[in-house]
Amino acid sequence: MASQPELEHPRKAFGWAARDPSGLLSPFNFSRREVGEKDVAFKVLYCGICHSDLHSLKNEWGNSIYPIVPGHEVAGVVTEVGSKVEKFKVGDKVGVGCLVDSCRTCHSCSDNLENYCPQFTLTYGAKYRDSTITYGGYSDSMVADEHFVIRIPEGLPLDAAAPLLCAGITVYSPLRYFELDKPGLHVGVVGLGGLGHMAVKFAKAFRAKVTIISTSPNKKEEAIQHLGADSFLISRDVDQMQAAKGSLDGIIDTVSAAHPLLPLIDLLKSQGKLVMVGAPDKPLELPIFPLLAGRKIVAGSLVGGLKETQEMIDFAAKHNVKPDIEVIPMDYVNTAMKRLVKADVKYRFVIDIGNTLKPY
Amino acid sequence: MASQPELEHPRKAFGWAARDPSGLLSPFNFSRREVGEKDVAFKVLYCGICHSDLHSLKNEWGNSIYPIVPGHEVAGVVTEVGSKVEKFKVGDKVGVGCLVDSCRTCHSCSDNLENYCPQFTLTYGAKYRDSTITYGGYSDSMVADEHFVIRIPEGLPLDAAAPLLCAGITVYSPLRYFELDKPGLHVGVVGLGGLGHMAVKFAKAFRAKVTIISTSPNKKEEAIQHLGADSFLISRDVDQMQAAKGSLDGIIDTVSAAHPLLPLIDLLKSQGKLVMVGAPDKPLELPIFPLLAGRKIVAGSLVGGLKETQEMIDFAAKHNVKPDIEVIPMDYVNTAMKRLVKADVKYRFVIDIGNTLKPY
Repeated sequence: MASQPELEHPRKAFGWAARDPSGLLSPFNFSRREVGEKDVAFKVLYCGICHSDLHSLKNEWGNSIYPIVPGHEVAGVVTEVGSKVEKFKVGDKVGVGCLVDSCRTCHSCSDNLENYCPQFTLTYGAKYRDSTITYGGYSDSMVADEHFVIRIPEGLPLDAAAPLLCAGITVYSPLRYFELDKPGLHVGVVGLGGLGHMAVKFAKAFRAKVTIISTSPNKKEEAIQHLGADSFLISRDVDQMQAAKGSLDGIIDTVSAAHPLLPLIDLLKSQGKLVMVGAPDKPLELPIFPLLAGRKIVAGSLVGGLKETQEMIDFAAKHNVKPDIEVIPMDYVNTAMKRLVKADVKYRFVIDIGNTLKPY
Repeated sequence: MASQPELEHPRKAFGWAARDPSGLLSPFNFSRREVGEKDVAFKVLYCGICHSDLHSLKNEWGNSIYPIVPGHEVAGVVTEVGSKVEKFKVGDKVGVGCLVDSCRTCHSCSDNLENYCPQFTLTYGAKYRDSTITYGGYSDSMVADEHFVIRIPEGLPLDAAAPLLCAGITVYSPLRYFELDKPGLHVGVVGLGGLGHMAVKFAKAFRAKVTIISTSPNKKEEAIQHLGADSFLISRDVDQMQAAKGSLDGIIDTVSAAHPLLPLIDLLKSQGKLVMVGAPDKPLELPIFPLLAGRKIVAGSLVGGLKETQEMIDFAAKHNVKPDIEVIPMDYVNTAMKRLVKADVKYRFVIDIGNTLKPY
């Protein structure tokens, strides 16, 4: 059993994996499938660290399959393409986000919303149709159907592109779908981490006025002076929150910890939209009358479809929307995970796979 | 103080009022304002009994001002119009719903959404701008600005028209705003009372497939054979609910009692909308991940604006959408309230004010 990951596919691969819920990552040999007709193989150069990597490594959602090679913010350069690949050629800069497959036939797939396909296949820790396990981008190489491969536009550095493939699309998609992408709207962003800082940048690129709502007063200066937010509310400051009541057209809430929704609903104008993109593991309290009184909405959104992900990254390149990243070597990853728990990163770790991942 | 209601305005009026939180109604003399330039005076002929009348009578929301003359589903015939009234003349059939005033200048008012104006004036138990108390339609006559008066179309009986002015618009508005008014959609209705049965009728008029979700198996036959619902789900039947997962485009939830939202969210397709029109007094538990996983929405909606209320009642007349009513005499009202507590009415009581309200 222990040797299966190395032998189940013909192409040798290596990366770093966690073997158990300690979540500790260490070098790992495995294998990738042969390049099929519609497949693209690429050398991984950079991979972002998403907070959900941490949840998976530690089995905090209870569905982890070990060993886990995390990573769904993957950027690199094409090394081989299948005979029927149309979109890519060797040398192209590409990326893979959260998905590597879906049923391709359901309503969601037909609507370019593979992210809502009930049978989608996550980039790591899931099962391909042949029941072999998916391994993510903390690794030297990937093979994926071209449908699930994103072209990274010229002018967007690969290290900065990587986090767009999850953190970027996760906030871009709801800004678009819930029509919070119109110039002059006033958009709130709750939580200033990997997702939150991208929400600020995209909302500003859509020419919204942006207010950050945070528990941490010490993030204010950075948020306004560096990220370009227009204002900053401390969520525990009752007077500030009261003064801002009814001022926001929409809110992107990136917080995964339990938190009260009423103060956020109260910040919305009538017809305002509170969109959750973080996933607290327990239900939150939803007061109903405040929703009725302003025809307000609480909604959820989960990453984005492939077509929209391409649109997002093209938009990001055009409007110079880039995550703030800290590039780290592969062998720093366990330290990075510890810092991530403490939110000690501005705002996304990206592993320099190309230069620092050594064969095992 | 006791004589104030009779003396504060020049026009004598009488009706039935509750004097205290017992909620017991009895005859009551009061007064109405003189007909202003833009005012319409009308003789009340019918008034529906809304469940919120009961909450107000018993001060269950804690903001009741006694004496209360309830009634915001009011229909009658115009007896006098002010010099600048443009829309109505003596003899016209008219109605008044939940609102008799709003600020007329805010964004909501400018958008014909007076129902979301922060300064709207409820038809009873509220204060006019001159600080006098509003009295509702359990009374012989009303005076209101023509902006807040609805024309009742020919062919719609006044007794059936009355409940449309609250129960009707409360469900029509969200079906329209949340785009659940398209032929072929599959709409769920939770709760089969005054609001729920109107939701079924409007959804059918929009040519939706309609599923009723109810705790009461004994309502099934009536719901399908009489109201024309297409199917019926017993919310406590786990197998039925499981089999219906992911089948609904939207749900109108009319239930005011505490109830779990997750089974309803699970019934929705991706991008489905759960719209609350009942107002549970305590927060409900909202599981977040199920919202994310299908980009679903939980929203609220509160009656409708005046323009939409007119549109609704014109639509109802054209498509023969009428509430099922039990017409009662004025002196039956306290018994009716007791039956309403037990949901013992199909589906709306309407008081025959014109024939049975006697001067006090």
